[in-house]
Amino acid sequence: MTVLYQRVAFIGLGLIASSMAHALRRGGLASECVGTARSAETRDIARDIAIVDRVYDTAADAVKGADLVVLCVPVGAMEDVAREIAPHLQPGATVTDVGSVKQAVIDAVAPHMPEGVHFIPGHPLAGTEHSGPRSGFAELFDNRWCILTPSEGCDADALARLEQLWRGMGANVDLMDAPHHDLVLAVTSHTPHLIAYTMVGVADDLRRVTDSEVIKYSAAGFRDFTRIAASDPTMWRDVFLTNKEATLEILGRFTEELFALQRAIRQGDGALLHDYFTRTRAIRRSIIDAGQDTDAPDFGRVRQ
Amino acid sequence: MTVLYQRVAFIGLGLIASSMAHALRRGGLASECVGTARSAETRDIARDIAIVDRVYDTAADAVKGADLVVLCVPVGAMEDVAREIAPHLQPGATVTDVGSVKQAVIDAVAPHMPEGVHFIPGHPLAGTEHSGPRSGFAELFDNRWCILTPSEGCDADALARLEQLWRGMGANVDLMDAPHHDLVLAVTSHTPHLIAYTMVGVADDLRRVTDSEVIKYSAAGFRDFTRIAASDPTMWRDVFLTNKEATLEILGRFTEELFALQRAIRQGDGALLHDYFTRTRAIRRSIIDAGQDTDAPDFGRVRQ
Repeated sequence: MTVLYQRVAFIGLGLIASSMAHALRRGGLASECVGTARSAETRDIARDIAIVDRVYDTAADAVKGADLVVLCVPVGAMEDVAREIAPHLQPGATVTDVGSVKQAVIDAVAPHMPEGVHFIPGHPLAGTEHSGPRSGFAELFDNRWCILTPSEGCDADALARLEQLWRGMGANVDLMDAPHHDLVLAVTSHTPHLIAYTMVGVADDLRRVTDSEVIKYSAAGFRDFTRIAASDPTMWRDVFLTNKEATLEILGRFTEELFALQRAIRQGDGALLHDYFTRTRAIRRSIIDAGQDTDAPDFGRVRQ
Repeated sequence: MTVLYQRVAFIGLGLIASSMAHALRRGGLASECVGTARSAETRDIARDIAIVDRVYDTAADAVKGADLVVLCVPVGAMEDVAREIAPHLQPGATVTDVGSVKQAVIDAVAPHMPEGVHFIPGHPLAGTEHSGPRSGFAELFDNRWCILTPSEGCDADALARLEQLWRGMGANVDLMDAPHHDLVLAVTSHTPHLIAYTMVGVADDLRRVTDSEVIKYSAAGFRDFTRIAASDPTMWRDVFLTNKEATLEILGRFTEELFALQRAIRQGDGALLHDYFTRTRAIRRSIIDAGQDTDAPDFGRVRQ
C-alpha cells in the first residue's frame, strides 16, 4: 500500500477515530498518526492502548505539522475545535470530519478554515453500539460507504487523495452535496434512531409496571431496537439538533404512515396490513443483495 | 433424554414447527413426529427434506393417534383448524399452539376442544426473519423463553409434561395469564414490529425519490429495522387484528413519547434529548446481561 499522508491528526478519539487509526495501520496508509481528546481520561486510555503514535493534550498541538486532520468530535463541538485549530494548520493540509450531519458541519467549520487549507467534509456510514477509544477495530469500514460532500471549488488532488484513503481503509466512496446527504441520512439513520430511542423509552416506562419482563422477553423483536438506542447520547443529541428540518420532515411522513396502519388495525382492515407487510419484505432482500447485511437467521447472533 | 410423547402432530410446517421437529429429534423427546400443512407445496417440501416422519394431507388425519398436537398456523386460522381436528383428537391428548397472541387463540380454540383433551396455549418467543419449512433449526429455542397460558382448571400432569418438553428443546418456561401475555408482547414484539414495518414503508416510498440510496446506506441504522419487517405478512396481519387493544394502547404511548421528542428537536431542547438517550442505554445493557442478546459489535455481523 502507498503512504498517502505523512501525519494524520485525530481530534477526538472515540469509536470512529480509533477504528480509522487501526485501519490506517492495517493499510500502511500514513507514516504517523497522532491525536487528542477533550477528556484526560480518554487521552490516558489512548496512550495506554497506543491507538496513535502520540497523544497531545490540546487540539492546537495535535494538528501542528499534520497533512491530514480528521475531526471526530460530536457535531455540536465542531465549531469550537475549528476555531482552536485554525491558526495552527499547516498550509496545504486537508481537514475532514466524520460527522453524521454535513450542512451544519460546513456552516460551523468552513468559515474558520484558512486560505490554502482544503476542507472536505466526510461521513463514514459505519458504527457500532459501542463508543470510546477501546471500541475501535480495523474492519469497521470494510465494504461500508463513506460519503464525502466537497464544496464546488474543492481541490481535485486533495479530494482524490482523501478518496484513496477511505478506499484504503476498506470503504466505498460516494460524493454528494451536503443537503442531499442530510436528507438521505434522515431516512436511513436519524429517524430510525429516534424511533428506536422512543420505543425503548416507552418500554422502560412500562417496565415499572411489568417488572423485568420487557428485558426477559426482548428477543421477540424489541431487542433489535435496543442496539441503535444504545448509541452515544451526545452524538445523537447533536445530530437531531443540527439535522432538524430533514429529520422532522421524515418523522412527519412516518407518523402519517403509522396513523394509517393504526387505523387499519382499529378497523380490522387485514388486506391493507397484509399488502403493507408484503411490500417491506422486498427491501430486506435488496439490502442483503447489496452486501449491507447478512442473511444469517437473527443476524447469526451467537446463542449464549 | 426421556421420551415425553409418543406421537407429536404439527398442524402447519413453517419456521416454528420445523424448528420444534429438529429440536425434538435432537433431544430424543418424541417417538414419532407427523405433520400437515395447508399448501401442497409446503407438504411436498416437508416430505422432501423429511422434517417429520410422515406428512398427511389433512389436519384431521394428522392428529389421529397423537398424544401431542401443536397448532403452528397463523392466529387467524386457528379456529378452522380447531373445528376440523376436534372430532379426531385422541382422549387424553394435549393440544397446544405457538401463536403470538393468546387470548384470541383461546377464544378461537377452547370452545371446540372435546372433554378429556387438555388445551394448553403456548408461545415460544423465538423466531427469525425467515419462514417456511426449510427455515427451521434445532437451536432456535435455546435459552429463549416459552410462555404457557394454561386455564385455571388445567390438568397438572399435562402441564408439567408440556413444560418439560419445552425445557428439553432448550427453552425456559414461564406461566402467565393470557391478557397479561398479550400486553407484554404488545410492548416487546407487536408494537416494535409495526414500527419497523412503518419505517421501512416510509423509506420505500422515498426510495422513488432517492433511487437505491436507502439500500446502499442502510447500515447507518435502517437495516436493523428491516430484519423484523421481513417477517411473515400473514402471521403479522393476524397478530395485529387479534391483539388490537393492547397494540393500540402501546402505540398510543409510543406516539405520545415520539411527539415529546419531536417537540424537543423543534425547540432545540438538547438537555431533554440527551437525558432520554442516556436512559435508553441502560436497557440495552440489561438485555445483554440477561443473555437475550450478544454484546458483539453490530451483533457480530459477518463482513461481506
